[in-house]
Amino acid sequence: MNRAHNFCSGPCTLPVSVLERLAADIVDYQGSGMSLLEMSHRSDIYDRVHHHTIDLLRRVCAVPDEFNILLLQGGASLQFAMIPMNLLGPGRSAGYVLSGTWGKGAYADASRIGEAYVAWDGNDSGFTTMPAASDLEVRPGVDYIHTTSNETIGGVRMPDLFGLDVPQVIDMSSDFLTRPIPWDNYDVVYGGAQKNLGPAGLTIVFVRKTALDQAPPDLPKYLDLAVHAKTDSLANTPPMFSIWATGLMLEWIIEQGGIEAMNAAADLRSGMVYDTIDASDGFYRSPVAVDVRSKCNMVWRIADGPGDIDLEAKFLAEAEDLSLLNLKGHRSVGGIRSSIYNGLPTSSVQALVDFMTEFASTNSKQ
Amino acid sequence: MNRAHNFCSGPCTLPVSVLERLAADIVDYQGSGMSLLEMSHRSDIYDRVHHHTIDLLRRVCAVPDEFNILLLQGGASLQFAMIPMNLLGPGRSAGYVLSGTWGKGAYADASRIGEAYVAWDGNDSGFTTMPAASDLEVRPGVDYIHTTSNETIGGVRMPDLFGLDVPQVIDMSSDFLTRPIPWDNYDVVYGGAQKNLGPAGLTIVFVRKTALDQAPPDLPKYLDLAVHAKTDSLANTPPMFSIWATGLMLEWIIEQGGIEAMNAAADLRSGMVYDTIDASDGFYRSPVAVDVRSKCNMVWRIADGPGDIDLEAKFLAEAEDLSLLNLKGHRSVGGIRSSIYNGLPTSSVQALVDFMTEFASTNSKQ
Repeated sequence: MNRAHNFCSGPCTLPVSVLERLAADIVDYQGSGMSLLEMSHRSDIYDRVHHHTIDLLRRVCAVPDEFNILLLQGGASLQFAMIPMNLLGPGRSAGYVLSGTWGKGAYADASRIGEAYVAWDGNDSGFTTMPAASDLEVRPGVDYIHTTSNETIGGVRMPDLFGLDVPQVIDMSSDFLTRPIPWDNYDVVYGGAQKNLGPAGLTIVFVRKTALDQAPPDLPKYLDLAVHAKTDSLANTPPMFSIWATGLMLEWIIEQGGIEAMNAAADLRSGMVYDTIDASDGFYRSPVAVDVRSKCNMVWRIADGPGDIDLEAKFLAEAEDLSLLNLKGHRSVGGIRSSIYNGLPTSSVQALVDFMTEFASTNSKQ
Repeated sequence: MNRAHNFCSGPCTLPVSVLERLAADIVDYQGSGMSLLEMSHRSDIYDRVHHHTIDLLRRVCAVPDEFNILLLQGGASLQFAMIPMNLLGPGRSAGYVLSGTWGKGAYADASRIGEAYVAWDGNDSGFTTMPAASDLEVRPGVDYIHTTSNETIGGVRMPDLFGLDVPQVIDMSSDFLTRPIPWDNYDVVYGGAQKNLGPAGLTIVFVRKTALDQAPPDLPKYLDLAVHAKTDSLANTPPMFSIWATGLMLEWIIEQGGIEAMNAAADLRSGMVYDTIDASDGFYRSPVAVDVRSKCNMVWRIADGPGDIDLEAKFLAEAEDLSLLNLKGHRSVGGIRSSIYNGLPTSSVQALVDFMTEFASTNSKQ
């Protein structure tokens, strides 16, 4: 197989060994006479797969016993609604950090449900910075502060997952399992699986058990986090394939050395790209403040001002010829973006930076 | 491979040819250099897969242009909440038919959201019957009447998908694509994919375009059916694997002769089981009125009264020895249940009825 170098911002590259295990078992799951796709979600075999994934998440992320681990559907997008429905009480408020597209999306939904306010706004900087704890407005009577650890479009990352005197909720969709989680600082940690740990269709929600004590008593069943907590996410048919595949990916992460190894790999690989940018004498230019540069999504422009659109198009075309795929920046910001998630081989990153160096050398106007 | 006979009530048996196509392409999708699981949901290749599934649904179900086809997550359970959120206006009401566990679930969620009432209640008959149109209470000011075409636990089915003078919403999760849909009678037709047409993780919602005209303007994004309608269900990352697999299953359904062939197969195969029950001189006994017997889920007891629990246990054990699996009735009602969905081979049904006949002959007390 001629494997592409896939820098897609999501869904993510998965290790070939994980894909091969899925292929091997998808027709007949471990000699059971049927596919896992065909099994009852109440069967013993699926039950083991389901709880294996939950157990591995607890182990890899070092999740304390005080947290439930939920395996849900609907993406982080559905959590944008479910979290205020469950946690934002009448007469109370929640502060939202607008660090980019995703933070703004979470705030928009919360505003439709309860009293949400902007605790910090990155708009003034064009979403190229992130706040420190002291930058946030924490109002009296706040139920929680919501942050986004990494913004895929702006390519910014919270360098410090700081604590506050009030509960916090964090969307870690795009740097899930690339860094340790300081559990004491959070009541809810959530994210879609499809960037760093599995296929689309699964959303993981870690929720502190006591955080649901004040939840409204009569939420619709699927929208009630306590229902999923009580049933180990088996209140209805779960997304079984994605849960199975995520379990295999978690086994792979453990083989690689766990979350510390993923963290080190993110440092190393994002560093390879940023070093190439910074060594290019201004040919490549990252708009993001150095201390908040994302370790999963590197964004950059080519040459002066807002970017040389023709040269960027040439870069993308030549990259594609080398099977360096999905490097186009998000349509809302343009430019170039490389997304480097856990499953991408380092050899793909090396191929990218080799090409970047060559392209800069050939196309510089000096 | 020693393929089991899988009578699971859901997820469903899939044709081996569909599973083999998934296995063949899961590592490297059609020579693209990556798995479909790893692709951007904005990529050309995935876009074709996504719209292929939508197009096949339109073709197989003969969906009129007046309907949007949505590919969502969260199961029918999430639709229990989303439908009243979108369709049940302030000062209006919605009538719910309580035909069993699923109808009751839909009603419970609607009651949490707006003014829902019981339009018909099967509780008096132990959920062994279904209503005719004239049995329903249709109140003035009703936004819609909600029915469930087939109840998996009670094994009852609406024989006639009747029209009313008001809009209707129908949950077809468990007999989806086993019968034609009379579109004029409905504003919304919905169901999980995992019983008759694909793996878990995908919910299909057919919604009449005009039905969303009066929807509240400011629903949370994922909960807003109009958002999904406007974006062809690409507002966020969709459950790509389940959508791909469902497309392959739809191709298989077309090869078999489409929905007419599935309808005929459901008649034939459910008939094989009911004929065996009815020919057993009372050894097997179906609690369900003949005209509303489900063609997907056949429930029966063994011998007198509420059922001979020891003999039922013996039946299940001997069946399992023959790889006739998942025949135990739902824990809430006991007894035996065979679920026969589109993907199950007729040879499995033959193996079941052969065993039933043999078991009755050996264990009758005559």
